[in-house]
Amino acid sequence: MKWKVGIIGFGNVSQGLVRILASKEEMLKKAYGFDFQIMAISDPVKGSVYSEDGLDLAKIMELIDKTGNIKDYPEGMKTLDSIKMIKETDTNLIIETTPTNVKTGEPGLTHIKTALQSKKCVVTTNKGPIALAYPELKKMADENGVCIRFEGTVLSGTPALNLAMEALAGCSISKVQGIVNGTTNFILTKMEEGKNYESALKEAQELGYAEADPTADVEGWDAAVKTVILANVIMGGHIAIGDVKRKGITGITLDEIKKAEENNKRIKLIAEVTKENGVIEATVLPKEIPIAHPLANVMGAINALTFTTDHLGDVTIIGPGAGRVETGQALLTDILAINRLFGRS
Amino acid sequence: MKWKVGIIGFGNVSQGLVRILASKEEMLKKAYGFDFQIMAISDPVKGSVYSEDGLDLAKIMELIDKTGNIKDYPEGMKTLDSIKMIKETDTNLIIETTPTNVKTGEPGLTHIKTALQSKKCVVTTNKGPIALAYPELKKMADENGVCIRFEGTVLSGTPALNLAMEALAGCSISKVQGIVNGTTNFILTKMEEGKNYESALKEAQELGYAEADPTADVEGWDAAVKTVILANVIMGGHIAIGDVKRKGITGITLDEIKKAEENNKRIKLIAEVTKENGVIEATVLPKEIPIAHPLANVMGAINALTFTTDHLGDVTIIGPGAGRVETGQALLTDILAINRLFGRS
Repeated sequence: MKWKVGIIGFGNVSQGLVRILASKEEMLKKAYGFDFQIMAISDPVKGSVYSEDGLDLAKIMELIDKTGNIKDYPEGMKTLDSIKMIKETDTNLIIETTPTNVKTGEPGLTHIKTALQSKKCVVTTNKGPIALAYPELKKMADENGVCIRFEGTVLSGTPALNLAMEALAGCSISKVQGIVNGTTNFILTKMEEGKNYESALKEAQELGYAEADPTADVEGWDAAVKTVILANVIMGGHIAIGDVKRKGITGITLDEIKKAEENNKRIKLIAEVTKENGVIEATVLPKEIPIAHPLANVMGAINALTFTTDHLGDVTIIGPGAGRVETGQALLTDILAINRLFGRS
Repeated sequence: MKWKVGIIGFGNVSQGLVRILASKEEMLKKAYGFDFQIMAISDPVKGSVYSEDGLDLAKIMELIDKTGNIKDYPEGMKTLDSIKMIKETDTNLIIETTPTNVKTGEPGLTHIKTALQSKKCVVTTNKGPIALAYPELKKMADENGVCIRFEGTVLSGTPALNLAMEALAGCSISKVQGIVNGTTNFILTKMEEGKNYESALKEAQELGYAEADPTADVEGWDAAVKTVILANVIMGGHIAIGDVKRKGITGITLDEIKKAEENNKRIKLIAEVTKENGVIEATVLPKEIPIAHPLANVMGAINALTFTTDHLGDVTIIGPGAGRVETGQALLTDILAINRLFGRS
């Protein structure tokens, strides 16, 4: 079948996806039997356009490169709001990449629900709706005979959720622990090299790893959101962000880092979910990790997760945790998975 | 649909699978919608049995525990040879786990071809047939509308091939490098700790990691077979074992290990496949790996692979590379993948 794609939210990540799709269209058809057309793009700032004949990706990217928006796209309907884009267009796959809101999930949550209720598959990198409402969204997808995938919400395109749910299928996972925030791991790595917290943070900000207000990263909020997703998706939990025992890295001193080193350990901000006798515990805490553990050797902005399983013991995956192409890849792998699973019907 | 399973070769690995299936039957149905019955088991030493009503797994494992074989199974047909077991029984999924032969692929190769030509899906951990004939077997599976999967041929149940082909789908992989033989990595780890090669080998033999004749492991032959599989499956190659530039670890001295350590490196037996301008190069060579690289920190009998990709840069997976439950898990994850992909028809 042909996938008719609607993109809701046209920032860096979905632009990254469109660039990949444009450059790999032929390969994707040959290697994966993936046949698609981008029908609609909707963004409150960059403009919206829908065409029954599909959009010309080269034209779209040329406009973005030249003007930063798609308002001058020469054809198509430009009056539909995001909800109508989802409901009333000839689309069967919705990519939701609006800015995340971890308190309300909006506008992503409504977009996703609207798409699933319209019997359209959804792929998203939007952490808010998944952290807030995964069990409900999964049920809604099942009831409507479609699916929702969101690999990019944790570790960007590095296989994390799909690894646990598909490649490790059949294993029981009793623990997931890892480094899910690149900013804090970059700061800790710089502190290992001798910088104090303030100058390490400054370097992270200069390189664009940390925001002007770094609270969401350094206080562990971003990691906590991802911990909720790991708990609810992989462990079958029903927890909220408030259930995560959380401590950031702002209090960590060079002295503590050196003392850990003397004991052959490294301090890492570890997101961890355990399930024992059906009880889920979720934490985000700075921990001393023995130097021989794979997580201790994950440096800089790189992320990693270790899954503790019954059949395989520990399995660790290490890879990037952010970036526009990296997160665009997350969307792509989910889209290709949907094509594998639903594409033959 | 219901999967009617025939098991050809009933050694440690498929016994491991049967134990998992017996203990997780209910969970597999609930979590993955996997509905199955073991119809047939065929083994030249342990006995063969086929029942149109399916076999009683508890009885099978009780017989194995008591007598080491299934010859006294109280019901069913016991006169079918392995080919008839594949062709003439009411089965739709064949598990091929006979002993591997990397020169001829037999008897596994004939078993697999027979199953595919009979339009039955195949899951195997048998390295010989995949290393010798993957492109042909893939084509045969496609032509017959079925599939063949073989996660367990590399890194046992640790996701390696499925990771590359599915979780990393859409990426172009330009290099795969890793530690794919636990025996040699165990020996090198012991040498890091100060043992010389001979006593490290002896310890590996005492622990059952190395065979009495350790040639296949220490001379890199086992790694070379897996390298061929990586090259042909992930990179689309058509290479044979003779195409792999190969050197084992028998010539490595404690002095070399110490010298590497002084330069912040570790010597590892690295299987590597690169693809540049369509040309594939495959090697198995001892290499000095910088201590900051994830592969340098993989110690003991653990295995690991680093995939170099266009969208994600390096992605590394670390996990067990052998073991009966670990390889049984490889069979299980492939079976569940087939159920995801073909189970709804």
